[in-house]
Amino acid sequence: MQKKYLMIPGPTPIPPEVTLAMSRPMIGHRSGDFAKLHERVVAKLKQVFKTQNDIYILTNSGTGGMEMAVANIVNPGDEVLALSTGNFGERFAKIAKEYGAKVDLVDFGWGSAVDLKVVEEKLRQNPNYKAVLATHNETSTGVKNDIAGIAALTKNHRAVLIVDAVSSLGGMEFDTDGWGVDVVVTGSQKALMLPPGLAFISFSQKALEAAQDNKNPKFYFSLPAAKKALAEWNTAYTPAVSLFFGLEAALDLILEEGLDKVIKRHKLLARACREGVKALGLKLFPAEENASDTVTAVAGDNRYDPEQLRKVLRTKYGVTFAGGQKDLKGKIFRIGHMGYVDKLDIITALGALEMALLEIGYPVELGAGVKKAMEVITGGEV
Amino acid sequence: MQKKYLMIPGPTPIPPEVTLAMSRPMIGHRSGDFAKLHERVVAKLKQVFKTQNDIYILTNSGTGGMEMAVANIVNPGDEVLALSTGNFGERFAKIAKEYGAKVDLVDFGWGSAVDLKVVEEKLRQNPNYKAVLATHNETSTGVKNDIAGIAALTKNHRAVLIVDAVSSLGGMEFDTDGWGVDVVVTGSQKALMLPPGLAFISFSQKALEAAQDNKNPKFYFSLPAAKKALAEWNTAYTPAVSLFFGLEAALDLILEEGLDKVIKRHKLLARACREGVKALGLKLFPAEENASDTVTAVAGDNRYDPEQLRKVLRTKYGVTFAGGQKDLKGKIFRIGHMGYVDKLDIITALGALEMALLEIGYPVELGAGVKKAMEVITGGEV
Repeated sequence: MQKKYLMIPGPTPIPPEVTLAMSRPMIGHRSGDFAKLHERVVAKLKQVFKTQNDIYILTNSGTGGMEMAVANIVNPGDEVLALSTGNFGERFAKIAKEYGAKVDLVDFGWGSAVDLKVVEEKLRQNPNYKAVLATHNETSTGVKNDIAGIAALTKNHRAVLIVDAVSSLGGMEFDTDGWGVDVVVTGSQKALMLPPGLAFISFSQKALEAAQDNKNPKFYFSLPAAKKALAEWNTAYTPAVSLFFGLEAALDLILEEGLDKVIKRHKLLARACREGVKALGLKLFPAEENASDTVTAVAGDNRYDPEQLRKVLRTKYGVTFAGGQKDLKGKIFRIGHMGYVDKLDIITALGALEMALLEIGYPVELGAGVKKAMEVITGGEV
Repeated sequence: MQKKYLMIPGPTPIPPEVTLAMSRPMIGHRSGDFAKLHERVVAKLKQVFKTQNDIYILTNSGTGGMEMAVANIVNPGDEVLALSTGNFGERFAKIAKEYGAKVDLVDFGWGSAVDLKVVEEKLRQNPNYKAVLATHNETSTGVKNDIAGIAALTKNHRAVLIVDAVSSLGGMEFDTDGWGVDVVVTGSQKALMLPPGLAFISFSQKALEAAQDNKNPKFYFSLPAAKKALAEWNTAYTPAVSLFFGLEAALDLILEEGLDKVIKRHKLLARACREGVKALGLKLFPAEENASDTVTAVAGDNRYDPEQLRKVLRTKYGVTFAGGQKDLKGKIFRIGHMGYVDKLDIITALGALEMALLEIGYPVELGAGVKKAMEVITGGEV
């Protein structure tokens, strides 16, 4: 017998309240009940996004949300500044290329964060950028980027700032209106504690204006179609109704706990995880000041093979950590701690990590990581 | 946000497979489908009971199962030897008194186990006992009793051995036919990983004969009625159908893991828990050689208040341990680890225990208990 402990940076564990809500009897998506539900969840989402902007709920993955942003704002031939710090930054640039943009891709390197000075210089040199693409939390490397800083730079520029907040929103501080982020995209299966299947996207006035008379072909991702439907609390195409049921339950959990407390919890648990990992003699992959609060990336070294470690964790302890993506495959492992995660999950993660390290012959002092994490947790506020 | 960690000696956590099974559409309890289900689950229960005896599935709690045993075997005026080591031993004696038995109650004390020498002497002195009542695992004190030893003594005596195996069967070694236990009673909400609501009871040939022409009034607990119904894979009265769905799923989990492995797992986890507790300087309540494999009872001492500890665990960590019952209230606490429990649950339990002890000012070295438990687990076989 083995329980399953899903500790990857999404999909994340589902609270029982959400599972129960998703089991409700189906309703018609053109019914008054659905419209009322839609109105309620958008109002609650706005609190989590911290925005007065319209928010569209899309029945697709986060990547579809990224595509919707690009497809409606970027015209063929437009210049786009893509700030990349890993796999999802690269993907964002690829989508822009697909829609005919002339993409100026700045690669800060896998494991590093966006350097604001570089962005400032780029924007100063080129007043023509139509959009800036940025990733708040680079899931592939466990790096967080300073979106507030980037937004301060785009505010007085023509460019629309489009941010992939898929693995951060609801788990890390994000102030859409306060920072002035034009387009924010997130997904259901990360800090929002839902199964995959929904994406959420907000458009500022500046973004809506930039989207006028867009020439790119799009149907499912059409902003005008979404906008027209939203005016009647409708969706342009058939929505994933059960996920909407779950969404309301998940948002209620977040708002009952209080968004600030949710963010604080993620911060404390991330710190406990990092300190625990370091106490075992392991090295964080990114510089600590850039480390994400929703996923901790740990570097491999010549004392152990991250893939062997993950296999032992999975087969002997039922614990799934994520591996590295692309060039980082086999070189790092990643512990997800976003959404429905509490203090004791960090103890569980580190306990399993320690026992698995021992088993693969890594020189671990059993208990050292858990002890350190407990010190952080008992010293913390949440 | 706080997850709930239910770590009491029943009800115990429910595996998702069982929850799903219980969500199946209702069926009629006099249908062919129910009869087939009934036949299947009894066959599987026999493997877990290790018996060829008939097993009756009752829609009531374990106490109802104990009453069914007594009500059908004991006649008013019969002499009954009740071996008590705590709350549930006392309850068994009370039931026998209610049905008019002359109860010879031997109280071995809360925290101690049955002394076989005393039982041997009692049986030698009195050839007239109609029944011997024994508790396999005394949930109130975390003490296990030697049922194999008691059964060896009753085998050549007139007395029917009736055993309360409510908090042991499916988690601790129990060999109904091998040991020669006449009546075995257990409940759904312990090691069998179901919600409360069902009890299971087996009767040997000796027990069936002793039950003939019983004079006590009984209707719901009538063995003849149950027997007649079982012959057609029926139940005498309306059964808790959804719990039967869940029962099959739970038994499948046990049989897929393998009963021997399930027992070994409980043994290892109990040892890890005990070693972890001791490494924190806490004292086990029973002598270690009598300690249960499904619940660990820990003694209070002048350095901490078990009730204050339990409150911190519940409110700050979402962890529920059980307190003491009756005279032991406030003097011990109990950690349940039966049924759907794996290695990492023990790490979670001890991690929470350590942090809560720190918080109430107990002189704890953070990590000491978890470290010791991890040593036991990584050195173990499961």
